[in-house]
Amino acid sequence: MVFEQAEYARRLAATRAAMAKAGIDVLVEADPANMYWLTGYEGWSYYVPQAVLVPQAEGEPVWIGRGLDLTGARLTAHMKSENILAFPEDLFERKDRHPMQFFAAEMARRGWDKGRVGLAKDCQTFTARSREALIAALPNARAVDSDLLVNWLRLVKSPAEIAHMRAAARITERIMATFFAMAAPGVRECDVAAELQKVATEGHDGVAGDYPASIPFIAAGPFVATTHLTWTERRFETGETASVQASGVRRRYHAPLARTMHLGPPPARLKELEDIVLEGAHIAMDAARPGRPCQSVEAAWRAHLAKHGLTKEARIGYPVGIGYPPDWGERTASFRPGDTTVLEESMTFHLFLGMWLEDRSFSVSETIRVAPSGGEPLCDVSRALFVKN
Amino acid sequence: MVFEQAEYARRLAATRAAMAKAGIDVLVEADPANMYWLTGYEGWSYYVPQAVLVPQAEGEPVWIGRGLDLTGARLTAHMKSENILAFPEDLFERKDRHPMQFFAAEMARRGWDKGRVGLAKDCQTFTARSREALIAALPNARAVDSDLLVNWLRLVKSPAEIAHMRAAARITERIMATFFAMAAPGVRECDVAAELQKVATEGHDGVAGDYPASIPFIAAGPFVATTHLTWTERRFETGETASVQASGVRRRYHAPLARTMHLGPPPARLKELEDIVLEGAHIAMDAARPGRPCQSVEAAWRAHLAKHGLTKEARIGYPVGIGYPPDWGERTASFRPGDTTVLEESMTFHLFLGMWLEDRSFSVSETIRVAPSGGEPLCDVSRALFVKN
Repeated sequence: MVFEQAEYARRLAATRAAMAKAGIDVLVEADPANMYWLTGYEGWSYYVPQAVLVPQAEGEPVWIGRGLDLTGARLTAHMKSENILAFPEDLFERKDRHPMQFFAAEMARRGWDKGRVGLAKDCQTFTARSREALIAALPNARAVDSDLLVNWLRLVKSPAEIAHMRAAARITERIMATFFAMAAPGVRECDVAAELQKVATEGHDGVAGDYPASIPFIAAGPFVATTHLTWTERRFETGETASVQASGVRRRYHAPLARTMHLGPPPARLKELEDIVLEGAHIAMDAARPGRPCQSVEAAWRAHLAKHGLTKEARIGYPVGIGYPPDWGERTASFRPGDTTVLEESMTFHLFLGMWLEDRSFSVSETIRVAPSGGEPLCDVSRALFVKN
Repeated sequence: MVFEQAEYARRLAATRAAMAKAGIDVLVEADPANMYWLTGYEGWSYYVPQAVLVPQAEGEPVWIGRGLDLTGARLTAHMKSENILAFPEDLFERKDRHPMQFFAAEMARRGWDKGRVGLAKDCQTFTARSREALIAALPNARAVDSDLLVNWLRLVKSPAEIAHMRAAARITERIMATFFAMAAPGVRECDVAAELQKVATEGHDGVAGDYPASIPFIAAGPFVATTHLTWTERRFETGETASVQASGVRRRYHAPLARTMHLGPPPARLKELEDIVLEGAHIAMDAARPGRPCQSVEAAWRAHLAKHGLTKEARIGYPVGIGYPPDWGERTASFRPGDTTVLEESMTFHLFLGMWLEDRSFSVSETIRVAPSGGEPLCDVSRALFVKN
């Protein structure tokens, strides 16, 4: 088990308290990060209808998934084997039947088919069809929205979770060192991306790295201001700016980081932007203290930018921890105007300060732990523009 | 552009014909593989509400996504820039508003808000909440299910698509050669997985490999019969069986492959299983000919297994081509009982023959192109058990 039984018991108790508050008798949780947090279940199986059921009454959660994944579920989830079940294979990818019919039958067998059932509406791994099939098969139940119910509980990290994030941060540091060492004029982007993935998987200090919730993003030269593109066989060139965003992962916990480098002597206007962003990073991190609202972090950064005549539209941070493709964000709080979520110690955020201007780009980010003296960066990598002459 | 304009025009015409048959006036397509197939749009942005709109009337499709991804969309999608739009950032991840409200407003502006709108119900990237928000914002429209409408059109591959799959297959061959060369007693699984990802990204013959829709799966020793687990720092041991499943990817086209190796002299019962499966692979591939139903491929394999007193529950193949995490399967036809889809030349399938028995496991797969003389494997890798003494 990745965590001690007591930690899983605390998580289950917190989930039941939130369910009680939302008036939910049974929660159907299909988000892979939430399933992992609740039960330890691990597997690249989230293209299939699967979920963890959490009853408000006592007892263990129940995992139901595809038969192919049953062995993996028994190895990774902490429940007794009678609470780890597979739906029949002939329900899979059919037009006229659905795995959720098995879920409903199992819920009825346990007396969980009445009352209020918590179902997500905005969870990629619980499609509208899954939702509809389950509701149709539970005529005595009433559906209650449970979007983000468990996500919110994941916001404050336990010491054991922080330890995994620190292990991930050590891997992130290796990834960044590799990027700075390898990216150079004439080198192909794909060869750098290849090495970053190799290092991320080898891990650090005897422990393997897990797969990240997204690929390493490299944006350079004419593409430096584009996000989310894949590497190509394009070669880095002298005189261009290159940015990287990547995360080490340990036990599914992420510690993402973005950094920027310049190949050759950087232009003065880029150094000027670097100075503004690095000072802004200090200001934003300093603002990330327990008791303050999320929006105050963004407001501090925004006020700093305004002094330099700059603005930035997108939010500048989101919670991070457990992640599965396609997203390592937790989808709850944000550092943006109007977000009044009050920060607590050991919330963890990916603070992302990306300035993509017409004539220059400089991005820097930190995975921070909210602490009394301000956001504590988990990685130890200089934020300065890395210049390779 | 990845394909010639004429190919995109053919795809659009085929989509419109299918829409007409299903009585759809405007299709809202949010599956990243379908979006890529229709428009060329590429980006790791499918954690965000985004979609391509296809009007039945003439004109280009329209891409709508997040502002962050607009530059990438303009670089990759083939439409004019007036048909590539971003929703306002303040609609993103909010409880009280939704990006689909912008979609609806844009549809109204174009006169596409009346009539029958095709919406998926079983698409991970178009959640129940997206669906509900769009329907609520389109009071004059009627929702029609469009699940898999475009997926079915992707089943037969064009010569240009087959060429990309062959390029992917060259990368897959490198991945498999690396696995056989590197996996050995005392070597950590994660170090092998690291090298497989490196090779997959470096690509082959001057072209980069893209990221696969799933990580390389390595299952060995006590875990050989488990699917979908991540590598760990565990070391391979003498006397154990190890299986691998991985795919090279080029321009998002996959050519997955599974192979099995044994470290040390293989036991007789494993060699016996190998013989049965390899003969079954021949039989199944021979059955994959134009004009035959999908179920006949599985029936031929099943009859062969029965002769040896064996059975296998799961389907033995699914269509493959464009893929995005978490799944490279196309989710339409299957090689399984009851599937009467008639095979046509240049459909491509991942034929997967995995026998996980109590005391031995042997898996082998091929990415095949349906051809008059039977399924043509795209990769050239011996299917035999790879024995490392």
